Amino acid sequence: MKGYIAPIERLIDAFRRLPGVGAKTAVRYAFSVLKFSEEEAASFADAVLGAARDVRTCSVCCGFSDGDVCDICSDLDRDHGIICVVEEAKDVTVMEKVRGYRGVYHVLGGSLSPLDNMTPDKLHIKELEERIKAGGIKEIILATNPTPNGDTTAAYLARILEPYGVKISRLAYGIPVGGDIEYADEVTLMRALEGRRDL
Amino acid sequence: MKGYIAPIERLIDAFRRLPGVGAKTAVRYAFSVLKFSEEEAASFADAVLGAARDVRTCSVCCGFSDGDVCDICSDLDRDHGIICVVEEAKDVTVMEKVRGYRGVYHVLGGSLSPLDNMTPDKLHIKELEERIKAGGIKEIILATNPTPNGDTTAAYLARILEPYGVKISRLAYGIPVGGDIEYADEVTLMRALEGRRDL
Repeated sequence: MKGYIAPIERLIDAFRRLPGVGAKTAVRYAFSVLKFSEEEAASFADAVLGAARDVRTCSVCCGFSDGDVCDICSDLDRDHGIICVVEEAKDVTVMEKVRGYRGVYHVLGGSLSPLDNMTPDKLHIKELEERIKAGGIKEIILATNPTPNGDTTAAYLARILEPYGVKISRLAYGIPVGGDIEYADEVTLMRALEGRRDL
Repeated sequence: MKGYIAPIERLIDAFRRLPGVGAKTAVRYAFSVLKFSEEEAASFADAVLGAARDVRTCSVCCGFSDGDVCDICSDLDRDHGIICVVEEAKDVTVMEKVRGYRGVYHVLGGSLSPLDNMTPDKLHIKELEERIKAGGIKEIILATNPTPNGDTTAAYLARILEPYGVKISRLAYGIPVGGDIEYADEVTLMRALEGRRDL
């Protein structure tokens, strides 16, 4: 970017670091910040700093936490015998919207992707094994994404967790509820057919 | 938003203050910031604070400046007899990309819009009149946006600046260069016809 004074230039560059933000959007965000009052700017800056400072990793599930152990892992009302394994910490919040789930989570921190140098040692798989070894686990639900990398990760986990003798399941594939068969892709339809259930 | 720990919640709320950012985009930005290192987060926060602290209004043209008078207004190589009137400070940068323009600017700080309570006294019109009264102005180019509000503002300015006897012009309307007549809207085409030039 050229033509802006230095502090605006820096602000535009800062916004360009956000995902999917190009030059025009960054300029738009920067100019909206310039309309902030000093207090608003301070609160915005503090939110960014606060997140970097206060958001920690739960020592049990590797998800986001503001303490040593997250609220879910320290909730004794939940079923600690069922662990739902997700790729990213934000996936926990998505799963939590399913009110019916009362088990706990384990965050891998990504998915296997040899091309991106994401090998098993980069994921929190050891931590998951430790939890299983500690005992009391009845079921592991693999909720990695329905992508090639997510599937690879689920297959890998299913293989290395097999010796522990716990039940391992995978989220069902199929047509999204409220979706239209006309717009479903072939692979999803095929999976929906394979997973058909008797009525 | 529900389900996130407090510092993440605050970050999401901060991003939602940006224009056009809804819940999903704010979450996406927030999670990308959570992947920043502490230094990256500090530099991002500092860019926001720095912009609020260091970006000032030029005492001559009312545009952005890091000092009392902006670089354009203090540039003696420019023609201070031609003033291009724009709505917003950011429009100056857009006009500056037109390398051919060597005059100076005046930023109104918006456009007239009675419904939004944007009346003439809210715009930097007094400041523009002062500059004209100070003398030496040959031409005022009205470069407000080609919108109803921008047109109203231009018409208003043309009327109140008329007594000063300086030449007043308006940016030409027409088909954008590189555009296709097929996709031009009717109003633009009509204006392009009205403004046609002999070859």
